[in-house]
Amino acid sequence: MTTPSTTATSTTSTTWVDVPPDHLFGIHNLPYGVFSTTSDRSPRVGVRIGDLVLDAGAVAAIGRDAGLVAEGPDLASAWRTRSLNAFLALGRPAWTLARQWLTEILTDEGYRDGVSPHLHALEGVQLHLPIEVADYVDFYASEDHASNVGKIFRPDNAALPPNWKHLPIGYHGRSGTVVVSGTEVVRPTGQRKAPSDPAPVFGPSIRLDIEAELGYVVGGATELGSRVSVDDAADHLFGVVVLDDWSARDIQAWEYVPLGPFLGKSFATTISAWVTPLDALTSARVPLPGQSDPRVLPYLQGDAFGLDVHLEVSLNGTVVSRPEHAGMYWSPAQMLAHLTVNGASIRDGDLFGSGTVSGPDRDTRGSLLELTWNGTDPVTLEDGSTRGFLEDGDTVTMTAWAPGPEGSRIGLGEATGTITAAH
Amino acid sequence: MTTPSTTATSTTSTTWVDVPPDHLFGIHNLPYGVFSTTSDRSPRVGVRIGDLVLDAGAVAAIGRDAGLVAEGPDLASAWRTRSLNAFLALGRPAWTLARQWLTEILTDEGYRDGVSPHLHALEGVQLHLPIEVADYVDFYASEDHASNVGKIFRPDNAALPPNWKHLPIGYHGRSGTVVVSGTEVVRPTGQRKAPSDPAPVFGPSIRLDIEAELGYVVGGATELGSRVSVDDAADHLFGVVVLDDWSARDIQAWEYVPLGPFLGKSFATTISAWVTPLDALTSARVPLPGQSDPRVLPYLQGDAFGLDVHLEVSLNGTVVSRPEHAGMYWSPAQMLAHLTVNGASIRDGDLFGSGTVSGPDRDTRGSLLELTWNGTDPVTLEDGSTRGFLEDGDTVTMTAWAPGPEGSRIGLGEATGTITAAH
Repeated sequence: MTTPSTTATSTTSTTWVDVPPDHLFGIHNLPYGVFSTTSDRSPRVGVRIGDLVLDAGAVAAIGRDAGLVAEGPDLASAWRTRSLNAFLALGRPAWTLARQWLTEILTDEGYRDGVSPHLHALEGVQLHLPIEVADYVDFYASEDHASNVGKIFRPDNAALPPNWKHLPIGYHGRSGTVVVSGTEVVRPTGQRKAPSDPAPVFGPSIRLDIEAELGYVVGGATELGSRVSVDDAADHLFGVVVLDDWSARDIQAWEYVPLGPFLGKSFATTISAWVTPLDALTSARVPLPGQSDPRVLPYLQGDAFGLDVHLEVSLNGTVVSRPEHAGMYWSPAQMLAHLTVNGASIRDGDLFGSGTVSGPDRDTRGSLLELTWNGTDPVTLEDGSTRGFLEDGDTVTMTAWAPGPEGSRIGLGEATGTITAAH
Repeated sequence: MTTPSTTATSTTSTTWVDVPPDHLFGIHNLPYGVFSTTSDRSPRVGVRIGDLVLDAGAVAAIGRDAGLVAEGPDLASAWRTRSLNAFLALGRPAWTLARQWLTEILTDEGYRDGVSPHLHALEGVQLHLPIEVADYVDFYASEDHASNVGKIFRPDNAALPPNWKHLPIGYHGRSGTVVVSGTEVVRPTGQRKAPSDPAPVFGPSIRLDIEAELGYVVGGATELGSRVSVDDAADHLFGVVVLDDWSARDIQAWEYVPLGPFLGKSFATTISAWVTPLDALTSARVPLPGQSDPRVLPYLQGDAFGLDVHLEVSLNGTVVSRPEHAGMYWSPAQMLAHLTVNGASIRDGDLFGSGTVSGPDRDTRGSLLELTWNGTDPVTLEDGSTRGFLEDGDTVTMTAWAPGPEGSRIGLGEATGTITAAH
């Protein structure tokens, strides 16, 4: 690894890699993942460019072993592990340095011969869960989503709970069932009870749903008893994944009072294989839509940027929704500040979800619960069939993109899963 | 390690270690923990007997290296790590074998000379968090506790939620803030809002509380999409810790609708340094107090034993409560069956809490919320001072014991913590 030149990322960047200029995974993106190949089955960190995957640790090791690095974090060692956690532990300065270096070796022609052998065709690699998830928290940051759910689940109450605009509501989910895109999702079984049922019944969920979200990957562990402020959050927000918070609405509705969702969510959460660095999304920063009534408490104020990310949800190939993340009421920096304001420590590999991204229009709702208004107004697919909730064999795919520098578009990874019958 | 003789644990056992017969950590207990010494600062697995700690891995390695073991799990390697997780991964047969072997080497005089050098005085060792907590779930299994909390937090509703007797209600907590007994607890800061307040206020919690629980340590990881039945639960229930689920009632009350407790709990959960194997608690198995009205669904039926564990909670040295775990409505086997019925996988190092153990009488309530009825009826300590909730500098210590074989008593580890001022 060489010390990057100071101009590597400051002007128009053209990569020597064969990537069309409008590719969603061009030189301005460079997301991280974990991959293996048939010739080397050890999962290790890769960086995507175009439809290729760079074996980042292999290249960094060559630089390191050739003595080209006098000091700095040992990226080669961190990247030759089976998750991004070791890299996340190195913290913000290492993340910045790594991105500068990756940009340099992929734009400077002088590196082409050395780097090219370590580029693998995406179609030939296996992608793995990119992080070892430490704690997983899911928030509830879309006002339209929270209002819709309130109207459906609690029709006799105000649509928004009284606390909703004062704090980003969140809860802990199950880290051990976060899976990488492509993993089959087994329909969950459990108890459900409609208000008209005399007693709960047991069986496979009949209201299996999706939730289109962004997930934020956290690094730079902190000590118990300390806090991360809104202004410091960017030092701990490493990157973004697309996240599908699969939800069994019937199980959830029966179980969630008073301690929150549990088995209605814990059977699977799908995240994209690629983690797009926050540094790739600087052009996507937008102001929040507004937090003036009520004004939030001081600990939630600061550089609380939103992100102009465009999601797309398809069901068996039919696009059913295009949620707009820019409309989210709460920002990821505020979520992290809130999560730690009580002194809770964060660990490398923590993951938190935005909550379902929903907008005011029907075709921007991020869950079938909202799209079909609890199944009463089904969506029609291109094959003419309709869906209130998911059927066995259905495949849901979520993608996303954001504006990048120089008119480019930054693609986020894809979160896809197919439903298999309950066991 | 030698193959244990078949009679090692079947009759009256007398250890050659100098332990009074009525000691809570006698030969029938043998809890596991993780310790280090000043001469060897590497945390490693230890087994407590009396007021001594056996360096289990060191002794097992001698046996293994001497070729005394032809086959079987490599306990020496598993025990020479910094948590019990590797041992948990070996599964039930290894746990049984290990316990037989430990019993044999601590009762057969022939091992005394070889084993003695690896016994360390408890007072000279440092105890560490015994497990690397994978997912942490907390249940709500005491009917008296749930009723009390319902009356206090939701006075206009029925004391028990409608689902309470149909399923063991639970939710995920924060794994990363589970700490070992003795760790200081920093008073959490956050939002609170009394019903009479016009807006939320921000500051240190003024209703800091405890919850006396047992925690169950899980091993024998399962695949996503599979279930653990009530009858198979014992294969995955490794052991028991004493657990203090510290709770900020004011933060919790304002945040918990609709997605459950979050920052009111996530700042710290204390567990004992010693994990008592379920195998040490066979004499403590008792029938559940009753699940006939309503009868539970079939997936919650089976060998759902209760545990006759007696807890004791002291505050600054004054015993304020003696909760009885035998009165818990739901059993740990049912909790594990419920947790996995939707196909959620379990991992080695998963931890779940029983929920606050409370009985019908005031002096058996496991939280200050209940003991003082939300601060309205304070407890008086031996120094004459009173407490509604915890003050800075207060120390809470929870201990527990259960009946063991041959008239013995099995001590569980201690969960203690002192409150320090908010940062």
